[in-house]
This record gives sequence, structure tokens and C-alpha cells, in this order.
Amino acid sequence: MFYFPNVEKVQFEGTGSDNPFAFRHYNPDEVVLGKTMKEHLRFAVAYWHTLTQDGSDPFGQATNIRTWLADDPMQTARNRVEAGFEFFTKLGVPYYCFHDVDIAPEGETLKETFQNQDEIVTLLKEKMDETGVKLLWNTANMFSNPRFVHGAASTSNADVFAYAAAQVKKALEVGKELGAENYVFWGGREGYESLLNTDMKLEQDNMARFFHMAVDYAKEIGFDAQFLIEPKPKEPSKHQYDFDAATTMAFLQKYDLDKYFKLNLEANHATLAGHTFEHELNVARCYGALGSIDANQGDLLLGWDTDEFPTDLSAVTLAMYQILENGGIGRGGVNFDAKVRRGSFEMDDLFLAHIAGMDTFARGLKAAARLKEDGFFDKLIADRYDSFSTGIGAEIVAGKMDFHQLAAYATNHDRIQNKSSHLEMVKARLNEYLY
Amino acid sequence: MFYFPNVEKVQFEGTGSDNPFAFRHYNPDEVVLGKTMKEHLRFAVAYWHTLTQDGSDPFGQATNIRTWLADDPMQTARNRVEAGFEFFTKLGVPYYCFHDVDIAPEGETLKETFQNQDEIVTLLKEKMDETGVKLLWNTANMFSNPRFVHGAASTSNADVFAYAAAQVKKALEVGKELGAENYVFWGGREGYESLLNTDMKLEQDNMARFFHMAVDYAKEIGFDAQFLIEPKPKEPSKHQYDFDAATTMAFLQKYDLDKYFKLNLEANHATLAGHTFEHELNVARCYGALGSIDANQGDLLLGWDTDEFPTDLSAVTLAMYQILENGGIGRGGVNFDAKVRRGSFEMDDLFLAHIAGMDTFARGLKAAARLKEDGFFDKLIADRYDSFSTGIGAEIVAGKMDFHQLAAYATNHDRIQNKSSHLEMVKARLNEYLY
Amino acid sequence: MFYFPNVEKVQFEGTGSDNPFAFRHYNPDEVVLGKTMKEHLRFAVAYWHTLTQDGSDPFGQATNIRTWLADDPMQTARNRVEAGFEFFTKLGVPYYCFHDVDIAPEGETLKETFQNQDEIVTLLKEKMDETGVKLLWNTANMFSNPRFVHGAASTSNADVFAYAAAQVKKALEVGKELGAENYVFWGGREGYESLLNTDMKLEQDNMARFFHMAVDYAKEIGFDAQFLIEPKPKEPSKHQYDFDAATTMAFLQKYDLDKYFKLNLEANHATLAGHTFEHELNVARCYGALGSIDANQGDLLLGWDTDEFPTDLSAVTLAMYQILENGGIGRGGVNFDAKVRRGSFEMDDLFLAHIAGMDTFARGLKAAARLKEDGFFDKLIADRYDSFSTGIGAEIVAGKMDFHQLAAYATNHDRIQNKSSHLEMVKARLNEYLY
Amino acid sequence: MFYFPNVEKVQFEGTGSDNPFAFRHYNPDEVVLGKTMKEHLRFAVAYWHTLTQDGSDPFGQATNIRTWLADDPMQTARNRVEAGFEFFTKLGVPYYCFHDVDIAPEGETLKETFQNQDEIVTLLKEKMDETGVKLLWNTANMFSNPRFVHGAASTSNADVFAYAAAQVKKALEVGKELGAENYVFWGGREGYESLLNTDMKLEQDNMARFFHMAVDYAKEIGFDAQFLIEPKPKEPSKHQYDFDAATTMAFLQKYDLDKYFKLNLEANHATLAGHTFEHELNVARCYGALGSIDANQGDLLLGWDTDEFPTDLSAVTLAMYQILENGGIGRGGVNFDAKVRRGSFEMDDLFLAHIAGMDTFARGLKAAARLKEDGFFDKLIADRYDSFSTGIGAEIVAGKMDFHQLAAYATNHDRIQNKSSHLEMVKARLNEYLY
Repeated sequence: MFYFPNVEKVQFEGTGSDNPFAFRHYNPDEVVLGKTMKEHLRFAVAYWHTLTQDGSDPFGQATNIRTWLADDPMQTARNRVEAGFEFFTKLGVPYYCFHDVDIAPEGETLKETFQNQDEIVTLLKEKMDETGVKLLWNTANMFSNPRFVHGAASTSNADVFAYAAAQVKKALEVGKELGAENYVFWGGREGYESLLNTDMKLEQDNMARFFHMAVDYAKEIGFDAQFLIEPKPKEPSKHQYDFDAATTMAFLQKYDLDKYFKLNLEANHATLAGHTFEHELNVARCYGALGSIDANQGDLLLGWDTDEFPTDLSAVTLAMYQILENGGIGRGGVNFDAKVRRGSFEMDDLFLAHIAGMDTFARGLKAAARLKEDGFFDKLIADRYDSFSTGIGAEIVAGKMDFHQLAAYATNHDRIQNKSSHLEMVKARLNEYLY
Repeated sequence: MFYFPNVEKVQFEGTGSDNPFAFRHYNPDEVVLGKTMKEHLRFAVAYWHTLTQDGSDPFGQATNIRTWLADDPMQTARNRVEAGFEFFTKLGVPYYCFHDVDIAPEGETLKETFQNQDEIVTLLKEKMDETGVKLLWNTANMFSNPRFVHGAASTSNADVFAYAAAQVKKALEVGKELGAENYVFWGGREGYESLLNTDMKLEQDNMARFFHMAVDYAKEIGFDAQFLIEPKPKEPSKHQYDFDAATTMAFLQKYDLDKYFKLNLEANHATLAGHTFEHELNVARCYGALGSIDANQGDLLLGWDTDEFPTDLSAVTLAMYQILENGGIGRGGVNFDAKVRRGSFEMDDLFLAHIAGMDTFARGLKAAARLKEDGFFDKLIADRYDSFSTGIGAEIVAGKMDFHQLAAYATNHDRIQNKSSHLEMVKARLNEYLY
Repeated sequence: MFYFPNVEKVQFEGTGSDNPFAFRHYNPDEVVLGKTMKEHLRFAVAYWHTLTQDGSDPFGQATNIRTWLADDPMQTARNRVEAGFEFFTKLGVPYYCFHDVDIAPEGETLKETFQNQDEIVTLLKEKMDETGVKLLWNTANMFSNPRFVHGAASTSNADVFAYAAAQVKKALEVGKELGAENYVFWGGREGYESLLNTDMKLEQDNMARFFHMAVDYAKEIGFDAQFLIEPKPKEPSKHQYDFDAATTMAFLQKYDLDKYFKLNLEANHATLAGHTFEHELNVARCYGALGSIDANQGDLLLGWDTDEFPTDLSAVTLAMYQILENGGIGRGGVNFDAKVRRGSFEMDDLFLAHIAGMDTFARGLKAAARLKEDGFFDKLIADRYDSFSTGIGAEIVAGKMDFHQLAAYATNHDRIQNKSSHLEMVKARLNEYLY
Repeated sequence: MFYFPNVEKVQFEGTGSDNPFAFRHYNPDEVVLGKTMKEHLRFAVAYWHTLTQDGSDPFGQATNIRTWLADDPMQTARNRVEAGFEFFTKLGVPYYCFHDVDIAPEGETLKETFQNQDEIVTLLKEKMDETGVKLLWNTANMFSNPRFVHGAASTSNADVFAYAAAQVKKALEVGKELGAENYVFWGGREGYESLLNTDMKLEQDNMARFFHMAVDYAKEIGFDAQFLIEPKPKEPSKHQYDFDAATTMAFLQKYDLDKYFKLNLEANHATLAGHTFEHELNVARCYGALGSIDANQGDLLLGWDTDEFPTDLSAVTLAMYQILENGGIGRGGVNFDAKVRRGSFEMDDLFLAHIAGMDTFARGLKAAARLKEDGFFDKLIADRYDSFSTGIGAEIVAGKMDFHQLAAYATNHDRIQNKSSHLEMVKARLNEYLY
């Protein structure tokens, strides 16, 4: 217990507390709608933002003070394991997530890269056994290294496709070794910088081939994690093929992959695509494909992925309501794909930021539960659509109507009466639950 | 020949002409890549923008001077037929398009509405026979009347669903009567104002039921038009279910509708969804679903559908290239879903604006043809992806590889060499074709 | 008491109440920081949205049920006065606002237009005397009529400039007659549709001339209202000259108008310009130019002015904090420039929507007051900038430093230590105040 | 002649050439409107993008192959001087621009930093004397180093303010030494990450103090360069104080700085602020403040600064037209603040990209000159505003009218006749000039 000397195990102390390192709302064992908060929320820490992100941005150098940095990259990697599990356990999260390159540096050769990973995976496994912290998901970073400049599974270079396959093969083995609950694909370079020199059809055909091979290999080695695709519309690519939930579902259906994949949805990616987060969650639910979430928030006045810690109680409540409607997040979880602001550069900020996010989700869960217990939305929906529960509406829903019957009906019912949505009142009443 | 006394039949006069009512680039009989311009472009005039739009906007009243307006709405409707065919023939376009409510006013009852339509359809048919102008597509307007305030096929009110069914049933009959080549669905209110009171799953299930009924009815009456859905992300609704090409394909696949529908894609809708027009056309091509286009342009610094006449030669060339790659637009066409600016309020502006659009498309077609003849993009693509035409790449594309083989290959080929895209040079060279 | 039979005088009933026509948070006589809520908030109803808006949008017709509509426009205008004051008094707002064309229809001639206004102004005055409701501000609508298609004070047509002058002259006289506290200029068409045919310098010079004439005339007639400009970046124009607070201040300074004008800032206009509302309020404060606010909210995922009733407690709290920091809103007020959604078409929705907005502002005021009483932001700022209160920092602020002295100091102090902003914790703590 | 062995001096070869390293349009000695292209365009290469940018982005590592990189940062710096002047002279540009940290690495101390600069400045001076290449402008980078995390002149830390002062003091001395024509301030961190912890008034007061000190010091040392501020709305900061041209002019006027500063305007910054480039140039002209331009282009579907090489002929023509209207760019120039795409990673791409940009500007200049020679816009404007050249319009412009006279006139001229803008025809005709 060495890297975060200022912080003891973070405890729930309630709203009366002034302790910055205590939860004011997240009480892991508090039961909400029959499950503990911990079971509902299945929080995970993102290795990349917490342990490798340095505070740099396109116009500025690293600002973060991180005491685990050593001269030797492998020593840094070992230190990160120590620091990471100290952080996970002090924070009290049950899960973490990583990309292959987060945990161990790339070597000169692919073989050396895998050896580096193996060494760290052994350490991770020991720590997991020791602490009970589990792996929510792992993934392969196929976007940072220059070899992926033109894509990975959608590359224009067959050697890169092969390299990516080798990398994912290894990642699936690592996932199995560490008992990951899910395996995620986020295609940061799977898209295009310019359509002028892009064969979109070939690139997507190849992506589909790649996914099928991954599915086959996981089956072969008995790795039963849920496969997830994480949509994002753009950045770093000008256009990314997994633009949003619906686009990804079009692709999965086209290539007969929908039975193997669900979605890992991120709040900031939703807004970059022009959607609210609850919209994306709802779309996924319509397709039976809500897998897991990346919890963060963006700034709608900025055009890039800011990956802020989630503190918008309104948005989080609506997201949690979707998750409750889904019957929970299943094998997925709430992964903080969020980074401390560049000006929050101290080690302690990592705790302060996660506490902010966890408390916000705890409040959102409780607000969503109240909405559910009161039947707030259920009543609203039932009332609004009641014409589909009887008469002609019920016949429509039952699939018993055709244009002849409907036209005949309409001729006799052409003085339409609609109901006011009273949307302003609905929003005001919702506010009573949020705050 | 009465409504446009200042204009004779618009002729091709070439770039040497100063006549504002002449084409400088569109030469209908000029052969490009083995077909006449007229055959390639299949231009259509939009009844709504040309004959019913009045120049009003959310902050201002009508500005347009339109000499066909009479006190009696049916007389106005008759005048519009006269004016419309004078316009179509003087302009020399082979097609036009309309919504039901564009051609005839709604009556007090559904029955009266249909009677109004019947009278005008008879006039239209006479004019079509007389002039040879054809109907590219018709559609039902299910967004303007207050009854559709909460949607049409996705309404919360079963009576409205029935009404919409009656309306589309009639529209299909009218389409058959007039020999329409396509039938279009644009769902301006098929979406939501707020997700808070929306049952998205039910609404989309109902939309799918509606589409299946429409398919069945068209089959029943022997109306063999191509069915088209026109995506748009938002406006007037906060979110529209047919957000973009990919979202629409997800929906069509989910509900087993993809074999019956193609897409009618609009430039301004593409940019509102965060895409270039050529992107949307390319996506449609990947799904074999490029049906027809709505030709216009937006203003990327504005957040609403400005429906400007297309004058951006660069964008139009790239769109026409996609159409050439598609083997042409098929039964679809190039419909000017564009309105004169509010300050271009004279009758003559209708000609000036269409001439601007047609000349731009003519230039775009010729530039795209030169790109095709020179193999500009073909060579670029062939060179860029050549690693997939032999060796390991060819094996990947042939579906003969798995992760074992690829990983073995990669271990021995982990010094990746990528090629520069030289994208800046590509753009500069492309400029030589555009201008 | 005739137009709103379902509603009695709206009373504060607290959060325990289920009465949809009661305030749950707005308690007009409750004292906050030494003033009543009523005095702090100075609520106003917007005549246009509440009494003339009909629910139409660019793709749809009117939906609103409004019982004051008569066949004769002047009778409608008279009915609106009745309905309006019934509404204002039942709602319990101290102020209202209007454009000239809101209160009375335009006539065939300018003279008739003014006569129509005179008749209604007499009625308004009687009602104001009778009820005690006052006029927060009036303005001239110089954007709806087709004559303003190319602008008003920035028109390309000198006759229009003269017409606009006549209209504002009359509006100033009406403002004086009714004792308006402010007079507002919003330049919906003062800008351009295209820069291609625009002489921006001439147009802005003319606008400045127009404003100077207005200042002179108000002085001449002894109308001592505060003059306000309302910035908006676009819509209906492609670009509007009063783009945002800072742009407007540049204009006012350039033309020596800054001593006569303050700003009327709107939340939705702020976000359309790429700013938060609190940013615009803060900019105005920096220039000593915070005059009044138009209370509403936009949808940051939509690109047009949605003018929704304000229900975002977070945004409203930050806005109210700026107003408290300003020492209050002065002669300005909180005007609900907000319209009921198209689906909220009943008369009662006008009450429900205003109640939602007023309750949100009441909560925002109380939250802002708590932040102020606790010195939440004061302490944060004082701590963050403490280096400017002593030593070299104090010297800088006092204007006593030059580059020689600073460079000498820096040479000896080049090991910079910055403080973490702990921004995530700040946001979490702020949440405790909001909700 | 060592770093670019594939490239000889780039020559004008015309459109018939297939040589990728030749100009097809830029012919430096060709006379356009009485001046050579070289004199009109005053091209400059940006040291940062061409010599220090490495192809990294927020999601990926460096891709660029750059042969000047050495183990010792100072040796790299020396190599860059060699490579840079080889590049400038082979390309045939008369100017270059740099930030202090571009040319020499920062040292352990401020003193060492300045010593590093001094060594390189000596080399630069030798090369400038040898080649005749001149310095368009230099600037101080006060945004990359972690010390500027909270700003430079607008920092919350007085020590940072002093450090920045020392840095600018040195930069002014360097500018004088090298005969810079301009000195630029771009405030990448002068703004805020969050308004919650920001004292905007103090920060802007301090910025103004800083600028005044800079003006005083330049005067003291006899450095007569034109001072320029470069507006940008956001990125890296959430909000930057110099948001756009108008905002910057508001600031400069408020603090009595407008007589000392002009603007350096960038195309991509314009679009990020919601404006076209020609708009920003026109605004600057209205304030007499057009100083210099940063030539590049953005992607309007992306929300960040992509800094692409300019190849949009339409936008460049309109920008060049503004510059011609301004009587030329004065002491400013056309600086390529543009970076090769991440996939254009070869050394040769630096040439290919600059050639693309220079050819585009050459075409734009020639198109703008044709527009000017034909009086295309002059006639359009003269015709559109002719009502202000005689009668009541001329009286208005002459400042002889008041509201009494105008209202009297309007009463007798209330049947307004506006002219159609024929905007669609204008755009089509403009196309004939562009291409």
C-alpha cells in the first residue's frame, strides 16, 4: 500500500461527510430493487485512463504526476500492477478493463511483445486471486501503433490484417486466462481518413471475416466471454464503420454476426454521433444487444471525445433507467472510460474523480429505481399508447390488419383526436425524481 | 404557355452564352460514357418546392410571387398543374415527383380528400400523356397535418395509424394510375420529440407492420414501383428512426424488409447526419440499396435542412461518381428537392435555380466520367489494396485463413511496411478533374 | 375569467402537492438573500409564444387549440388582451413583453397598422392599471413581414430602412406610453443569407446609424427605458451580426453605442453560438452590460432554436449565480421566451409549461443562493488565484510590472508549481447544491 | 542538399506536366493585377508542422519518417535548420514562421532555454542571409509545456505570468534579430477548461496588461513588427478568449489595444467558430484589422482542428478576393499552418502537400483577379444597394436623417418593393470563375 498514501479504503459516509475520500451516495451493500448497489453497477476501472494516461493533449505535454514511472518500461508495467490493484481495492470496485498495450510495453518483435504480456498477466492473475478483483473485459489496441495507420481488420495492407489477427488471438487467450467476462472490439482506425482512396466494401467484408475468425477461435479455446463492439462515429478516423448502435447492428446482421455480438456503449460516443446516451441504450435494447457501458460524459459544445468523469445526474439517471428496463447489465458493467482533466494532475485526483463518478451513478441508480417503483414511465407509456391495447390498435399489433380494413376503418374515423403530451409537465415532474 | 412568359424552352447554349435562361453545361443529348446526359441524370422537379413552397420560414411570412394562387384551393390546384407542366416542359426535365397534399388540398373528410386528388390526378394524367413527362415517384405527406403530431406509422394513436394506412393505400393506387417508377416513404414524424414518453420498440414494430402491409397492397394491385425509404436524422422530429442509410438498413434487415426497399438519399440529409453525400451513396451501394437521389445541398455551418439548389461541383462530382460505379441510378433519378432562397422570390428564379442545379450536375457527370475513363480512382484503389490480390491477402479474401495461420504468418512478418497515402497529392490531382 | 376555466390562481403548495396547477418551488414572497423570489426573478410572459404561436413548424401546420381566435384579426387581438391578462394574473407574473405585431395585426397601410396598435395599446393600458402587471419590454418585429426579406436596419433597400425607422419610432412611443422598463432590438434579418452579395461594412454602418437615431428619439420623447440588444448567431439569417455577447460588444464599442445599450441574453441563443448560457452572462458582466435574460433552453443535439421551457436545473442554477454576482438583474427580468412543444397543444399546457419554468428558476435561485451563502465559488476562486493577491502577482494586478522586472523574476523562479484544479471533485460537490 | 534527395527546385511546369514535384498553377513571376504571384501570396512554411510535427494524434503514435531526428535534441534542432532551409528554397517560398520551442529544445532552466535558442537563431540568421528567405513571424509557445496547464497571460498562477513575460520578451528580441515582419499571439491556453473555477474578468484584465507590456517592450527595443492576435474558439481549451475576429476586436477595443494589433486569421479556426473563412476576413476588414492568414482547411463534419492543406478552390478564391479587396495582405502573408495527414508520412509528402496548397492558392488568386477585373461582385453590390446612392438612401448614409424625417417618408412609401437576390444564378455564375 504505497502509491496512494493519502487514501485509505474509501468508505460510504453519507452526505454529512466532508471527507473528500469518502462516498456520499455509493453504498455498495445498500439494496435497491432487490440487489445491492455493487451488483447493479458492477463498476470497473479503465487501466488506460487511470494507469497509463499522462495528461497530454494535441497541444500539450504530459502534466500528470505518476509515481509508478520507472526508466525501464517493464518495471513501469510491474509498478502499474501494484498501483492498479492498490487503487482498485481502496476504491472498492469489483472489476477492471485493459487493452493489451496498457499492461505491457510492445517489444521489438511480436514474440517479445507477447512475452512482455505473459509476464504481466502472471502478476495480474496473482493480484486478482489475492484481491478478488475481476476482469470485466480486455481488448487489443489496434489503433496506436503506426502499423495501424491505415486500419487493422479494415487495413489496406494484408500483413497488418495478419498482425492484428495474431494480436487478437493472443488477447483472447489472455482473456481466457484471466477469466474475462467480455471481450471488446473498438475500431479506432476501422474506418477511413478519406473516402477518395477507400474501398469501403472490401474493408467491411474483411472486418466481417476477421470477426468470424475471432468467434471461431474463442469457441475453439473455450473462451466463453460475451463479444462486444463499441461504436464510435469518428476520432481518430474521419469516419468509423461502427458509427453508432444502429449502424453496428446493420453490419452485424448483414454479415450474420448478430448472434455473437452485443454492444458496449459509451456516453461520449453517443453524443459525438448526435444521440443521447439513453437513445443508444434504447436502440441496443430494441435489438436485444445491450452488453455493457463505458461510463463518462462529453461536452456537447466540443467536437471531440473529452471522456470526462460522469457527473450529470440527469443523463446518468436516464441511462440507469434503461439498464433497469433491460433487467440489468448482465455480464457487462459500468466501466469508467474517463480521464481526469489535464489540470487535475495529482495522484489523488484519480480517487476524487472516480468517487465523483461512482456517487453520480449511485444517485442515478436510486433515482431510476424510484421512477421504476412509482411506475413513472410505465404509466406515462401505458396511457400514451392505450389505443394500441384494445380495438383496432390491438388488431394492428396482433398483425391482423391490412390496408383494406384500415382504410375502411379510417373512412369512418377521420376526425382524429390526439392527446397532448404535456411534455413540459413531464420534465418538471421528472426533475422531482432526479434531484 | 402562360405562367412563365419570360421564358422559352431552355436550350443548351454552352459557356459562351449570356442568356440566363439557357444551359451552359447540360446538353440533354450529349453522349457521356455511352448514354445521353438525359438518360444518365433522369432529372425530376419536386412539386412541393416548385409549386407549393411560399418562401416562409419559422420567423417570416411568405415572400414568393406565385401567379397560380386563386381564392379557391381547388382552382389553385388546377392552376398548379398547368403551371407545373409548362415549367417541366420548358425546363426539359423528364420527370416530376409529388406528395399527395401537394397536388390537391385536403377536404373536410377523407373521402373528400380522395375526391380532390382524383380530380387532379385526371388532369395530371392528361398532361403527362400530352407532354411525355413522367412520374419519378409519389408519396404521402404524413407529417404536415396536425393529426400526425405524434407520428404516422409510428404514432401513439391507433386511429392515426389507420388514417395513414388509408392515405398510403390511396397513394399507391395513384402511383399505379400515373405509372410512377418508385414510391417513397419519408418519415418526418416517424421518430420522437422526446424519448421520455416514447415506446421505441412498439413504434418501430408498428412501422415494420405498416411497411409490410404497403408491400402486400402494392403486390395485390400490381403496382410494381421500387419502394424507397428516405433517411433523415432529425427535423422536424428530434430524432427520426430512418436516421441515415446504415440505420435504415439495420431496420430493414431486422424486419425482413430489405428485399422490398431501397434508399432515396438526399445530400442535405446526409450532412445533417454527419456524413458526406458520397458516403451515404457508398453505404447504400455496399448494401445493394442505392435507389434514387434527392439533389440539393446544405450549409454545414447551419444545423437545419436548408434544401439549397446544388451548386457545389466537388460534392456533385463525387456523388455522380458513386452513381456511375453503381451502373447508373436504375429506376431512380435526380430529383431537385431544393427550394429557392427566400430572397429569390420571383417566378423566374424557379428557372434560374433549376438551371444552376442541372448545369452543376452536368459538369459533375462529365467530371465523374473523365475520372472513370482515366481510371483515376480505380488505379488508386488497385494500388492501395494490391496486397489483397495475391499471397496472404488473397487467401484472406478467399476465406481460407484462420487465426492460427495468420498468427503464424505475422510472427514471421512483424516488421510492417505501410505505403504513404499521399492524400494531399490525390486531392490536388482530383481538383484538375473537377474544375 | 374565461379563457382558462380549468385554472384558478396558481398558488405555491410545495413539493407535497399533486396539483398540476400549483407551484412546488416558486413561492413569490419567500425571502432569499434579503429579497423576495418575486423581486429576484421578475418573471415575464412572452406575448408571442403564449398568445400568438400556433404550433406550426417548417414541416407542419398549427396544432395549438386557442380559444381566442376569431374571424376578425382585430377581434382576435382584443381577445388576446383578455386572455393574456387572465393568464398573467392567474400565473402571478409581474411582467410581460411583446413585439408590435404580436398585439395587433398589420394594416393595409402603415397608418392603419399604427391605428390598430393604438386601439390595443389602450386596452393593454387599462388592463395593466387594473391588474398591476407591467411591461418588461417591447420591441418591433422587423423580420416576419416580407418587406424585411433583405434586412431592416441593415437592408439593401433604403425604403425598408425608412419603414423600419417609422416602426421603431412608434414602438418607442408605445413603450413610453406603457411604461416599459426596457426596449429590445433582436435583429433576426440583420445579417446575411450569403456573403456573396453583401456589403457588410455598409450594412453595419447603417445599423449603427439606426441605433443612434433610436437613442436620440428616445431621449427626445423622454422614454428612459434601458436599450437592449439580443444576440443570436443565426436563424433565420445564415449569419446574424449580433452573433453573441462579445460580437455585439465589439460592434457597440466601434460605433460609440456601448454607453446606451446593454444585452438581453437568451440561453438557446448562447448554445447556438457555441457557448453555455453562463458564459454569455459572464461575458456581459465583464463589459458591465448584463441587461435582461430570455429564459429557455435548447437541445444541443439539434441545430436550431427550439425555445424549450427551461427545466435544466444545473444550467439555471449557474445562470442565477451569474445574476446574483451581478447584484441582480436590475431593470431587466426573466422573460420566458419559450414555446410549448408542438405536441403540448392544449390551453392548459401554457400553464403547465410556465409552472415548470418558474419552479426550475425558483430552485435555481435557491441553489445559487446556497452557493453564495456558503462562499462555494468565492472560496474556490480566492484559493485558485491567491498568487495574485500578494507579491509579484499583486504587483502585476496593480500595473507596476514590466517585461524587464518580470523576466528578472522568472529567471529566479523558473521551477513552476501549479495547483491541481480537482475539477471532478468540484463538479461532484456542486451537484450537492443543485439537487 | 541532403534531406530531400528526391526533389530538385520545384518549378512551374503548367497543367501539362505529370511531374509530382512541379507546380501546375503557381508561377511565381506571373503578373496578376499588376503584381507577381510571389508578391501577392507571400507564402510561408510553418516550422512546427513541417519540421517538428510527427504524425501522432490523441489515439496514435508518431508515423512520420523524418531523417533529421538525432539522439541529442540540440543536434536535431541544428539538423532541422539545414532541412528547413533546403525545403524552403527548393519549394521557393519567401517566408517561414516559428514558435520559440519549434527551433530549439527547452533547457533545464530558463537561461538554458534562451541559450539553446540563441545558438539556433545564429544558424537561422546565417541561412536567411545565405538564401534570402525571410521570417514572416515568430511567436512564443505558451501552451505545450505543463507549466501553462492553467494558462499563460491568463494563468491563475502569478509565477507563470512572469515566466510567460520572460518568454515573450525573448521572442520579441529574437524577432527583432531576425527581422520578423510580424509577431503573433495565439492563446491556446488563454481561456478556460471550466467556467466554474475561472475568474474571467481578472484573467482578461491580466491578458490586457500582458499585451500592453509587450507593446511597450517592442517599442523600447525598436522592434517594429506588426502585432497580430490569432483567434480560435476552442481546442485545446474548452473556451478560448480570442474566440473569433469579432470577439478579439471587442477585447482589443475594451483595453485600448486596437491601435497596436491586427488579426492573423486561420481558415480552420473560422469554421470551428461557426464562420466561413471569408466571413472572418471580411469582419477583420471592417475593423481595419486584417493582418495575415494561416492557410489551411478543416473538415466541417469533424469538431476539431484538422489543419489540412488547403485544396478547396472555392473557399480559397473567396479568401483571395477578400485579400484583393483589402489592397493585399500588407506585411502579412499566406502561412501554411497545415500538416500532412497521418497517412502521408513520407518526407516527399511535405513537398507534395505544399505544392497542392500553393497551386490551389495560385488558382484562387487568378480566379479572384478575374472576378475583380470583370467587376463581378462590384456590379452585384452596386446594383443591390443602389437605393443608398441617391435620394433618401444617400441622405441616410450621409447621416442627415432622423426618425421624424424617416417616419414621414415611410408613411408615403409603405408599399415596399424589394429586388430578388437571384442567389442561385449568382452561385452558378460564380462557378464559371472558379473552375
